[in-house]
Amino acid sequence: MAKDFVTRSQNYSEWYNELVVRADLAENSAVRGCMVIKPYGYAIWEKMQKALDEMFKETGHQNAYFPLFIPKSYFEKEAEHVEGFAKECAIVTYHRLRAKSDGTGLEPDPDAKLEEELIVRPTSETIIWDTYRGWIKSYRDLPILCNQWANVVRWEMRTRMFLRTTEFLWQEGHTAHETKEEAIEETKKMLEVYAYFAEKFMAMPVIKGYKSPNERFAGALDTYCIEALMQDGKALQAGTSHFLGQNFAKAFDVKFLSKENKLEYVWATSWGVSTRLMGALIMSHSDDNGLVLPPNLAPIQVVIIPISKGDEQKAIVDKEAEKLCFELKTKGISVKYDNRDSYKPGWKFNEYEFKGVPIRVTLGARDLEQGLVELARRDNLTKESTPIEGLSSKIEKLLEEIQVNLYNKALLFREESTRNVDSWEDFLIEIEKGGLLSCHWDGTPETEEKIKELTKATIRCIPLNAKQEEGKCIFSGEASNKRVIFARAY
Amino acid sequence: MAKDFVTRSQNYSEWYNELVVRADLAENSAVRGCMVIKPYGYAIWEKMQKALDEMFKETGHQNAYFPLFIPKSYFEKEAEHVEGFAKECAIVTYHRLRAKSDGTGLEPDPDAKLEEELIVRPTSETIIWDTYRGWIKSYRDLPILCNQWANVVRWEMRTRMFLRTTEFLWQEGHTAHETKEEAIEETKKMLEVYAYFAEKFMAMPVIKGYKSPNERFAGALDTYCIEALMQDGKALQAGTSHFLGQNFAKAFDVKFLSKENKLEYVWATSWGVSTRLMGALIMSHSDDNGLVLPPNLAPIQVVIIPISKGDEQKAIVDKEAEKLCFELKTKGISVKYDNRDSYKPGWKFNEYEFKGVPIRVTLGARDLEQGLVELARRDNLTKESTPIEGLSSKIEKLLEEIQVNLYNKALLFREESTRNVDSWEDFLIEIEKGGLLSCHWDGTPETEEKIKELTKATIRCIPLNAKQEEGKCIFSGEASNKRVIFARAY
Repeated sequence: MAKDFVTRSQNYSEWYNELVVRADLAENSAVRGCMVIKPYGYAIWEKMQKALDEMFKETGHQNAYFPLFIPKSYFEKEAEHVEGFAKECAIVTYHRLRAKSDGTGLEPDPDAKLEEELIVRPTSETIIWDTYRGWIKSYRDLPILCNQWANVVRWEMRTRMFLRTTEFLWQEGHTAHETKEEAIEETKKMLEVYAYFAEKFMAMPVIKGYKSPNERFAGALDTYCIEALMQDGKALQAGTSHFLGQNFAKAFDVKFLSKENKLEYVWATSWGVSTRLMGALIMSHSDDNGLVLPPNLAPIQVVIIPISKGDEQKAIVDKEAEKLCFELKTKGISVKYDNRDSYKPGWKFNEYEFKGVPIRVTLGARDLEQGLVELARRDNLTKESTPIEGLSSKIEKLLEEIQVNLYNKALLFREESTRNVDSWEDFLIEIEKGGLLSCHWDGTPETEEKIKELTKATIRCIPLNAKQEEGKCIFSGEASNKRVIFARAY
Repeated sequence: MAKDFVTRSQNYSEWYNELVVRADLAENSAVRGCMVIKPYGYAIWEKMQKALDEMFKETGHQNAYFPLFIPKSYFEKEAEHVEGFAKECAIVTYHRLRAKSDGTGLEPDPDAKLEEELIVRPTSETIIWDTYRGWIKSYRDLPILCNQWANVVRWEMRTRMFLRTTEFLWQEGHTAHETKEEAIEETKKMLEVYAYFAEKFMAMPVIKGYKSPNERFAGALDTYCIEALMQDGKALQAGTSHFLGQNFAKAFDVKFLSKENKLEYVWATSWGVSTRLMGALIMSHSDDNGLVLPPNLAPIQVVIIPISKGDEQKAIVDKEAEKLCFELKTKGISVKYDNRDSYKPGWKFNEYEFKGVPIRVTLGARDLEQGLVELARRDNLTKESTPIEGLSSKIEKLLEEIQVNLYNKALLFREESTRNVDSWEDFLIEIEKGGLLSCHWDGTPETEEKIKELTKATIRCIPLNAKQEEGKCIFSGEASNKRVIFARAY
């Protein structure tokens, strides 16, 4: 257990906040609700971006960039959409500062008031669909498969680093299609991309499903999502993919001439994941010793720490380290040799353990005489003495093993934390224990609202693979034909 | 010459604007002064980002992310800095919209007025140095070598796509050092990185120099820059690297305990390039037939266009195309096989020529019978019939040749457009012809101001390699010991 570091069981929320700061991932900034993403945290985000971006491109998408500002009038055009975002947006009203007459500083210049207010984008459907109107004339112009990596702003009242911040980084895909079927297919395809990323890179098992009407994106006909379970038993929505129907095409008058020579409204999807994934990653694997990173997203996969006395020993250790670094890099493994004199080995052990580096190799001069090194795993905190001969191949396999182990551990935890609940009495007891509750629901927003009001639990999703099964709603007792997932959530 | 396309000599400015739109690079958005960067344009920017990012990392820098918003009070802390940016900034004053009482739409909610206005970052020195205060305690914490890729906003009155837009994309490096010498070394190192990028990737020769005091960045002690010459004879500042001294450390009280155990202010640099480079790239090489891209930044380096009649011919051509694509991809060359039926070969020729694809291969069924293909170069518009045998190796060499050729052509143009001018009379004549004028200057801001006022020419830079040479200021006749570069500029 790291020194002076609160444990998960003592205070999960404090554990998270401290971990984020002490592992050098991020910190709160002087600007309300906005965080600074520090280099180590940003390096993880870059690995996420790279993996996702490659998958987007493999599935035919291209990146583009649309303006940060959205005129207020655009924002108003889709009724549900504006309803969803108007209450939490940053509004630009002036374009110049001037000196105050009393000399105490600056103020917005009244002569530079904007005729129309600009909204800092909370999401870009409106400005993008206004743009697509110019791009789409005929079926030949479709599909349009665009993505953008950008910052967005939602003026959240309660913020937490990565999980909910006023400004956050994300990607938003916005696609335009000829037919409803094609748009739905795209929506589902991107859900699969997100699920693959979550499981293979983040080592985080997810449930694929769709949202109940209450939880849909503002302006969507259907919202698909991946839901994950955090270690404290709360669920976290990790990515969403929306089927927008023709809502935005109608709001922005985007029509195309079909193959049948008819003017029709275009079908739309949008989908996104954000720096929130960083929070999900942290809460999926980390422990009371600090961060635990899956190898596929670790900026440093292997750290090498030397132990030697005197110049002669140092020369031997340095030489072995150099060789090992070369071999690992050749295999595409990212490695750091920390031979700083200003810090002692014990300090370094703690440092890299806290930062979640998957594998630590200790190169000790005395061990090396016997051809041995110490190999330590971050995931299960085990150590072993092992021959330096063939080490790089062993490390390569071990990284894969750690990746799989983290996933399996998280999956086991989720399975143990998921249970069928069939009565309201049981629900009230079980929801207090956390985890995912698989329950029958009568399908009405009223019941969902009431359950939320009474227990703070929401329907996380209706799983895509939900079995047809006759049952009765846990709350109303009305008929239901499949189970949905209830949980308290981030 | 492309159809309906204005030539450079007819109207250079219109040629540029049309080119940007017709080559699918960008378009003006509905938001004043903000552009939409379209997928093809963004793909070029991504290649620029990748090359620069790799060089930043090789020189020890790490990426991070700092907030979009800067509290007004931070902005005010460095006097010259605020003076430079206060007149052109977007100001956020509210965080919520509400329905108007007359039901005609939305308005900022008076109850959601911010206590302190937030400025959308025009550059991030202030928020970053406020953050660095928490990161820096001792010399052990130095240097800090951070970069961020971000959007920034400067409320420009006259905007042009890529060259000057209200919102633009850029990278901004912000480094902190123990000593003045180290900070100056960093400033110069990053100038070298920019110059290398401009010349090797953009095929754009640049002059490395530093700015006269009038042209320095607001808050810098020294601004280094790379300056390029555009085809219309105007200069363009393509990148800047600033030595900030201790100005921001003092404004934000950032001190460190030195090796000698003294509290000292930290030394700073900042450096940036932006989507403006896209404008520079376009204006360096493109011609009356559209865009011309250097192979090192072309999203599509080779396009293959089939010509065939009937299924049998089509099958043969497809097979050869597939083989060629595979060979080129193996060599790391990006290739597109455009076998769409909906467009004719002639249309495709024009399309890819206009989009600046460096090499076009035409695979004609009849040519193939003789083992031949047609190879066309975009840079000099030549075509040749060549054996398909060994084609991928030939293309690989040709791409390198085109890259060098574009650079040499631009260099020759710049050399021919650069001349020594030694009298005010000559200056008045020569400045009208465009190009770079190498002149003696007395070193005073007054003379510089006066020359600008009379001719619109500014000192682009004092070249780093300027020879010591006695002379007289072209304007004042006062003594001068080296020549500086004057030009009209973007």
